[in-house]
Amino acid sequence: MTSRETSIEIPLEELRQQRSAKWTAYPPDVIPAWIAQMDFRTAEPIKTALQEIVSQEDFGYPRREGQQPAVVLAQAFSEWMDKRFGWSADPALAVPVSDLAQAKFAAILAFSDPGDGIALQTPCYPPMLEAIRETGRRFIDNPLVDAGEGVTLDIDGLARAIDPGTRMILLCNPHNPTGRVFEEQELEALVALARRHDLVIVSDEIHQDLVYPGRRHMPLAALSAEAAKRTVTITSPAKSFNIPGLRCGVMHFGSQELKDRFHRRIPRRLLGQPGIAGMDAAITAWREGEPWLSQVLARLTEARAQFEAAVGTALPAVRWHAPEATYFAWLDCRDARLPTSAGDFFLKEARVAFSPGESFSPGYRDFVRVNFATSTAILQEIIARMGQALLRFAR
Amino acid sequence: MTSRETSIEIPLEELRQQRSAKWTAYPPDVIPAWIAQMDFRTAEPIKTALQEIVSQEDFGYPRREGQQPAVVLAQAFSEWMDKRFGWSADPALAVPVSDLAQAKFAAILAFSDPGDGIALQTPCYPPMLEAIRETGRRFIDNPLVDAGEGVTLDIDGLARAIDPGTRMILLCNPHNPTGRVFEEQELEALVALARRHDLVIVSDEIHQDLVYPGRRHMPLAALSAEAAKRTVTITSPAKSFNIPGLRCGVMHFGSQELKDRFHRRIPRRLLGQPGIAGMDAAITAWREGEPWLSQVLARLTEARAQFEAAVGTALPAVRWHAPEATYFAWLDCRDARLPTSAGDFFLKEARVAFSPGESFSPGYRDFVRVNFATSTAILQEIIARMGQALLRFAR
Repeated sequence: MTSRETSIEIPLEELRQQRSAKWTAYPPDVIPAWIAQMDFRTAEPIKTALQEIVSQEDFGYPRREGQQPAVVLAQAFSEWMDKRFGWSADPALAVPVSDLAQAKFAAILAFSDPGDGIALQTPCYPPMLEAIRETGRRFIDNPLVDAGEGVTLDIDGLARAIDPGTRMILLCNPHNPTGRVFEEQELEALVALARRHDLVIVSDEIHQDLVYPGRRHMPLAALSAEAAKRTVTITSPAKSFNIPGLRCGVMHFGSQELKDRFHRRIPRRLLGQPGIAGMDAAITAWREGEPWLSQVLARLTEARAQFEAAVGTALPAVRWHAPEATYFAWLDCRDARLPTSAGDFFLKEARVAFSPGESFSPGYRDFVRVNFATSTAILQEIIARMGQALLRFAR
Repeated sequence: MTSRETSIEIPLEELRQQRSAKWTAYPPDVIPAWIAQMDFRTAEPIKTALQEIVSQEDFGYPRREGQQPAVVLAQAFSEWMDKRFGWSADPALAVPVSDLAQAKFAAILAFSDPGDGIALQTPCYPPMLEAIRETGRRFIDNPLVDAGEGVTLDIDGLARAIDPGTRMILLCNPHNPTGRVFEEQELEALVALARRHDLVIVSDEIHQDLVYPGRRHMPLAALSAEAAKRTVTITSPAKSFNIPGLRCGVMHFGSQELKDRFHRRIPRRLLGQPGIAGMDAAITAWREGEPWLSQVLARLTEARAQFEAAVGTALPAVRWHAPEATYFAWLDCRDARLPTSAGDFFLKEARVAFSPGESFSPGYRDFVRVNFATSTAILQEIIARMGQALLRFAR
């Protein structure tokens, strides 16, 4: 490990002092590796931007570069998309949001009515399903398929599942919890299907920046004009830059028509707006955060390799497909034949807290989602505790 | 002026360095006294709370006192209402919002349909009217009346204006821009009318804390059980504590039934949530901000007296009713027979920027709203510039 990587890691004793949900939800003998938050120091430019707000007491009605901060935010979003993915996202079609749960609720309410069908790949990040259920929409399950090489979109299954009352596809790409980065070919097939049935696609791309070497994230709206005009891209620097508590994200509409349709039901001011701390952090992340992100990606790549080495050796009964993106290990523990759900087992027997598989879909109680965005030492301890618990149980 | 008061005033040269809309919208020879932002230093406890977030890099998924910050925010809101107004507001009926524009849009969309009538007292804070118009509701004008003693609610006029399609009254109390604190008797009459026609009242009470000696703010929902059950109180520490850029407020429903009705149309997560900086600032303001608020009220009382002394002497053609609340002077300049709107006149001839009367209602072009929440020196300069311009014009 080089000193460059070391510098972002936060030692355990310091993490234990955090006020965050991640580090306060469990007793101190438990190592938390559940919620999507990294145990890394914040990018210096972000910290500096926030320090400036506080030292200047810049808490009034803000302006940035002579404009509303929301305008600068949209510009910074567009610059980042172009720089990282070669996507020319029109800043005029971007709307700030507090978080992506808000964005999902807003899109569902704007583009569908109660009883309408919304397709979603499972397993899925729990708030996606909640957004469908709480708004009284109909959940159309489109399970991901795993033919042994990692999960893929089941386009044929989706074609069969779509009915005349279906209005929308909720996509998560890169995919949480599996870490898949869908291929352009899969996305094209999805868009073709959406076109045939005139569906809107809401594409949650919050993990866009956390992609490992060898794979490349393709923003859905950048795929084709046909994709753009029916795609609402929702994203945020909250995951990549580890600032979810500041609450700032973006909804981008692939066409003016789509945005107009949205605002016919959801007036802009109904969404409120992010506070200046969230806006400045997001703007700074997108404009000055790249060097820090490279450090994080280097550490995550290393952490993924650390896990890879453990699977099959220290964790013989655990299977996985190494994630192509995200800092999640989606672990298949079916071979271990555990007495309880895998999440419960590891919490009780290994004192490590993961996100239980069943929270992503009822059929996944033998799975856990492990957040490996932590220091080498902590990840080592997590793997050791898992291995010991599995060994004790196997005896 | 005592040193106690001096300590909150920010000198002109420092204000000129601000990045805020207030201090950047006009050329440097203009003194800005328009948007609702005070030229005072922030309460120390708020600044400290924000410094802690930054120094601890507490940007992850936050917890406060072992709970969601929104729960603590609702509790702090309830404590403040009880302490200041003797109102026992149920924290379980409070929902966090980003700002009160969001709260108004949400309430209008929840409790009315396009084409429905919404009554509003004019002159009014411009976003109130915009919320009615942008949502396609019908604006029912209920002008305040001024029989010489300050404006009052025109209950009879409202009774005549309400039609079978009327669903809501948007109230602003204390009133912006006039600075009236409505009497309990006026509020009771309003509630009786609302009861007769089964109307919801959305009561914007953001200026609740900025009330001058001799008057007392009565939260509408605290008036009676009948008032409570149809009242949505919307408020925030943003005005009193001068932190609008951090974006945090509260919608409080006077009954569980009203809240349930609201959420049938507006799911909680559609509103997003304030960032942790806004939440912590609001919680701290309500729990630890009272000593600072006393200092501010002392300075505002003094500033109001400073203005009072000028009206009729340095500003002979200007009439006003000294505000009972808010830091606004709502100036009637009709006697001056100005060649343009009063706002344009003072901007051009006195190089002072006020909120033009016509932005509060078309009939008020001879009025301006002056924000007097500034230092003694700056307010003196504002009054001097106004006096000189009026004198030059009168010649």
